[in-house]
Amino acid sequence: MGTLLSVIDLAGTFVFALSGATAGVRRRLDLFGVLVLSFAAATFGGVTRDLLIGAIPPVAIADWRYAAVSILAGVVTFYGYKAVDRLQNPVLVFDAAGLALFAVAGTDKALAFGMNPAPAAVLGMLSGIGGGMARDVLLSEVPTVLRSELYAVAALAGSTVVALGSLAGVPMSVSMVVGACLCFGLRIIAMRRGWHLPIAGQSSIVREREPRDIE
Amino acid sequence: MGTLLSVIDLAGTFVFALSGATAGVRRRLDLFGVLVLSFAAATFGGVTRDLLIGAIPPVAIADWRYAAVSILAGVVTFYGYKAVDRLQNPVLVFDAAGLALFAVAGTDKALAFGMNPAPAAVLGMLSGIGGGMARDVLLSEVPTVLRSELYAVAALAGSTVVALGSLAGVPMSVSMVVGACLCFGLRIIAMRRGWHLPIAGQSSIVREREPRDIE
Amino acid sequence: MGTLLSVIDLAGTFVFALSGATAGVRRRLDLFGVLVLSFAAATFGGVTRDLLIGAIPPVAIADWRYAAVSILAGVVTFYGYKAVDRLQNPVLVFDAAGLALFAVAGTDKALAFGMNPAPAAVLGMLSGIGGGMARDVLLSEVPTVLRSELYAVAALAGSTVVALGSLAGVPMSVSMVVGACLCFGLRIIAMRRGWHLPIAGQSSIVREREPRDIE
Repeated sequence: MGTLLSVIDLAGTFVFALSGATAGVRRRLDLFGVLVLSFAAATFGGVTRDLLIGAIPPVAIADWRYAAVSILAGVVTFYGYKAVDRLQNPVLVFDAAGLALFAVAGTDKALAFGMNPAPAAVLGMLSGIGGGMARDVLLSEVPTVLRSELYAVAALAGSTVVALGSLAGVPMSVSMVVGACLCFGLRIIAMRRGWHLPIAGQSSIVREREPRDIE
Repeated sequence: MGTLLSVIDLAGTFVFALSGATAGVRRRLDLFGVLVLSFAAATFGGVTRDLLIGAIPPVAIADWRYAAVSILAGVVTFYGYKAVDRLQNPVLVFDAAGLALFAVAGTDKALAFGMNPAPAAVLGMLSGIGGGMARDVLLSEVPTVLRSELYAVAALAGSTVVALGSLAGVPMSVSMVVGACLCFGLRIIAMRRGWHLPIAGQSSIVREREPRDIE
Repeated sequence: MGTLLSVIDLAGTFVFALSGATAGVRRRLDLFGVLVLSFAAATFGGVTRDLLIGAIPPVAIADWRYAAVSILAGVVTFYGYKAVDRLQNPVLVFDAAGLALFAVAGTDKALAFGMNPAPAAVLGMLSGIGGGMARDVLLSEVPTVLRSELYAVAALAGSTVVALGSLAGVPMSVSMVVGACLCFGLRIIAMRRGWHLPIAGQSSIVREREPRDIE
């Protein structure tokens, strides 16, 4: 179980890093800039969570594998941009898997550091969406997650399951699997159907919309 | 006194959250984005202060009431944008009150965590203005506070009174009231008269200008 | 040696603050905004490093001299913008010296707080480049360091020397001098020759380019 989690964690890191690197290449950053965006997109959420719960130094800084995986993703994207771009649909599926894992694992870690369930769920969501927000802010764009379809809400649904599970005394492994599946499922369905949240002044809660790029 | 402070603190949080939500609705963020902006505008200053002084976890993360009040303000703004927009003048007065309270309470907290008076005053100011800066950066705008009328300076005046008061051995409650009144008064007068700070290359230190929107 | 380091450290702070203030004046910020940019450009890298390694409160917050030097640089730039602007070439040389010092001293501090060599080198680089990134993000621009010539890479080269030196048991003073000289030399040569990193899709690794403004 521990090994499996590590593998998924690093896979999620890789996929999030791909999204950062892709955005960096599109905006014509140089190689270093692309690597910074890879690393930021892959780790910013977890690093912020760790700072907020007092897990110092943050694991993504102290454990070289996160940086190594991020750099690998950045280099692959930099020199093989066309191939990565063509793989966008599979990447989006991995991205949903990474989001699900980061959200439930982040909630678990926040609970383990003594946070109450409500802030733990918020920190779990932040673990999932923080990297994408950092990526967009560094590119001087309004974070996609603030105006896109169900992305953060999927993360929050997953992290809430874990937080409620801990309140109810459900074994953590069970609530983490359920939470991750809920997040992943919601995200995939939202992409397929173009679900998104309402914007003020529009009539319907859920409108259809074109599926879009990597978050 | 403690209860009164709590009430004002949450009221300040609410008003700061309104400014974040209003900015989010204007920029066409979705509901989640509006709530993130509410929360960021209400809490980013205090969270940053807490990280810098080692008050982990930051109170605005650990205490659910800050998130609850922020979300309430966000939802109210989202579904009642026109009404909130019409209330802009009273909101600006509350915003000045929130700024005053955050500045003096932030200074007090920094002093309580062992900071020297000068950094404590800066951290008090940061508690007051940090949320608005985060709101603007998330919207990919240059923070208003960096180019507007006397907003940060009012906060700094209030926090400096508290810091100097602690040096001089004045009872904290006295210097906090004086500091808050100074900040609030300066801010209100600055809004009324359109006072602002100089821009390099312009001749006068203080020019008249149109009063402007929520900071 | 300690005094010399302090002097260079504050000199680096001053020069980095100049770059923040210059950018602020150009974007028509008011006096307060210019001072915030001075302080952010001078200290953000070190503050972030300190948060990540648990050196709380960060030295640039707790020690008033960093703020004083930053404010001095901001005021000088604000009221003497033309003179500062004319001194750009000497300022760039000092900027390279500040970068070199911040990178090696930041690595040294991260090692002293128990970080492994690889993250210590990254944190050293971050100490050097973080301020410029914060300056650009506050001005709603994509950080220059993500798309410019050899700036971050020079910092990373210097910090890597210090990290490898600590692994190899070389006396810290030796590896810091070697690392700082390497960083400074690389940066100066890169400016002179217009060296920069590749952008995806371009053929050559290193192209000639016009030397450019303060990082």
